[in-house]
Amino acid sequence: MSSKGSSRRRFLKEGVALTGLAAAGARPGMGQVETSQVVKNTRPYGERSRFVTSARIPDDPTSRSPAILTPIQDSAGIITPSGLHFIAEHYDGVDIDPQQHRLLIHGMVDRPLIFTMDDLKRLPAVSRVHFLECPGNTSLRRSKNTESIQQTHGRTSCSEWTGVLLSVLLRRAGVQKGASWIVAESADRARYIKSIPLDKAMDDILLAYYQNGEPVRPEQGFPLRLFVPGWEAISSVKWLRRIEVVDQPHMARWETITHGSIRGDGKARWFEFEMGPKSVITRPSLGQRLPSRGYYEITGLAWSGGGGIRRVEVSTDGGRTWKDAQIHEPVYRMAHTRFSLDWTWDGTEQVIQSRCTDERGDVQPTLEQLAEVWGVDMEYWKTTTNNVLKFNPIFRWRVTRDGSVQNALFS
Amino acid sequence: MSSKGSSRRRFLKEGVALTGLAAAGARPGMGQVETSQVVKNTRPYGERSRFVTSARIPDDPTSRSPAILTPIQDSAGIITPSGLHFIAEHYDGVDIDPQQHRLLIHGMVDRPLIFTMDDLKRLPAVSRVHFLECPGNTSLRRSKNTESIQQTHGRTSCSEWTGVLLSVLLRRAGVQKGASWIVAESADRARYIKSIPLDKAMDDILLAYYQNGEPVRPEQGFPLRLFVPGWEAISSVKWLRRIEVVDQPHMARWETITHGSIRGDGKARWFEFEMGPKSVITRPSLGQRLPSRGYYEITGLAWSGGGGIRRVEVSTDGGRTWKDAQIHEPVYRMAHTRFSLDWTWDGTEQVIQSRCTDERGDVQPTLEQLAEVWGVDMEYWKTTTNNVLKFNPIFRWRVTRDGSVQNALFS
Repeated sequence: MSSKGSSRRRFLKEGVALTGLAAAGARPGMGQVETSQVVKNTRPYGERSRFVTSARIPDDPTSRSPAILTPIQDSAGIITPSGLHFIAEHYDGVDIDPQQHRLLIHGMVDRPLIFTMDDLKRLPAVSRVHFLECPGNTSLRRSKNTESIQQTHGRTSCSEWTGVLLSVLLRRAGVQKGASWIVAESADRARYIKSIPLDKAMDDILLAYYQNGEPVRPEQGFPLRLFVPGWEAISSVKWLRRIEVVDQPHMARWETITHGSIRGDGKARWFEFEMGPKSVITRPSLGQRLPSRGYYEITGLAWSGGGGIRRVEVSTDGGRTWKDAQIHEPVYRMAHTRFSLDWTWDGTEQVIQSRCTDERGDVQPTLEQLAEVWGVDMEYWKTTTNNVLKFNPIFRWRVTRDGSVQNALFS
Repeated sequence: MSSKGSSRRRFLKEGVALTGLAAAGARPGMGQVETSQVVKNTRPYGERSRFVTSARIPDDPTSRSPAILTPIQDSAGIITPSGLHFIAEHYDGVDIDPQQHRLLIHGMVDRPLIFTMDDLKRLPAVSRVHFLECPGNTSLRRSKNTESIQQTHGRTSCSEWTGVLLSVLLRRAGVQKGASWIVAESADRARYIKSIPLDKAMDDILLAYYQNGEPVRPEQGFPLRLFVPGWEAISSVKWLRRIEVVDQPHMARWETITHGSIRGDGKARWFEFEMGPKSVITRPSLGQRLPSRGYYEITGLAWSGGGGIRRVEVSTDGGRTWKDAQIHEPVYRMAHTRFSLDWTWDGTEQVIQSRCTDERGDVQPTLEQLAEVWGVDMEYWKTTTNNVLKFNPIFRWRVTRDGSVQNALFS
């Protein structure tokens, strides 16, 4: 990995001042022993420290079933702990008995098939690290009037997902001529339905039963979820019970009315599945406060439904100049990718931002470029209370003189 | 990744029979809904399904502070969930207040330094996926008279570790001429001490404060542990409070008396840090039972302190013939690496085993080769109740006619 490179050299060369560094022969205070608590090594399943309070927060506490947001400001590396993965459901979840659960594959196939979980686990498994992002992450409404990066960017997470490739099962079932879509259905009371083109199903869609080395959590679809790499999270149907092979999409409520993109001419576009290139500086970020001037490692995450992240640039002067950030290994396709850049804050007001480029060469747009491409008047975006999904402009954070970090997207 | 390759093709081509596959137009039974339980989406920190019971087990339940073993038989992919990471302590752990914790770097340095956790987190961070293996994993004693792979192989785990490179701090402190070792000390009541050559400290040792995307758990050394890639886990000092730069090892109890290797001439060899190449088939494995003849994906893990895994071979006929297993991406240096091979069990007794080769070309030895290299009489190993650490022979599992899997290492 590239970590032995410029970061370390610059840190050493600049000899930047670190708060809290004491040059002395002193030994650490004994206070740490007095405040420590004995932990028995006998727990079958371990827990966090009593001092660790990083938590998901509800998007809208007044909702009966609010979305629960990942504390992305606390992230390091690229893996989101399963217990902190975001949830964006329109109904409550379920905890299904895996012994009772079945997956049906039917419709335009030669051989309808039913699988138990044990059947699926006997098949060749693959593990892949991928992000999962709600199309409402960083949506227009959530990009305004929010107080933390957890509220703006907390609807994306990244895990190691393990399961069977859907293509393996579809080939076994024998897809018939003329079939062009699949429709996936959930086993919860919502009977959630999602239509997905057959091409994607035959490519890289997983039937995931493990997440981060253990069974998928109930809130993520235990015992089985569809996992559709790089596409809006609403494609990755939880509590998966049925896949029907069909020749046209189902036109269900959640794929038409509620998740279309309203463009400049007032019309909605449906079935835009892929998440665009996006990046954000997670530290320093909205809601944080720098304790003092001096050295900081600017760090953040970049991802794209279009594949791997090829480049991340960071500006610390309001966009006048850009520097290539260090991209940390590993770089997976359609996964969070960690980047960093050394920065010395001189105590003046500064606007910091990042933009990424994916393997296709697609670049994360500015707010102005996005408005132009989508044919929208910027004034409308500034003033409307309507929402816009799949919103992926370059985010700007303003570091003020007192060290507090503010949202500078619309200024 | 390579998962679209031979596994899938062979599964399809051979058309092997799968139990539980029903060809019918039937729909999944409604039973799954009746046995499902509503899960509210409001938990700040998620939990496992009530149906998931995978757990660590104590090595010796009569011990006051037994080792706690990872359920490696339940693994998929390469990440071990933090809650299932093995623990092998000789004393209880501690949960230390991170605000009170300090790290002292002193000894043969120009500038002794004290760091708070906030100081450390401001420095450039790196994240790396590495295994951590107790030198007692698969030790001679544990390779005999055990009933599950969790008991033989449950002292290795693999995580994404995030922290600061120790070399960054040592360079800042200014290592003096003549220094050749560091001594690391823990902050728990054990005041555990470990000596490590300075070369390794300047290479890839991490001061880790995150594991799998969240703060290191108390049982793994919260708020700070030394992480020494590829070396025996006893090097990776938990609850790290002090690093002294010195010109000779400390010769502490845990690095001499209790962790030396007894060789053929009866003498002990100290300071052999690196873990050798090792692999094991995790499914089917000791303690499991195959429900029926037919297709199985043989899957397992390989790792080496010598770097990345280059090759894994599997034999399903008692060692007469070997086939190259599929190595699954990602392959990290000094990390668990997943491998698999298609297998059709015909219902007869078979001995299955795996051997790995690392990037240096080092091959996991047979039991006989290991005895020869170490100058030990095989009969002694068969009969002794003494223990042998860093034991890495090829493990053999016997699949019997009734489908049960037994330990065939010494037969």
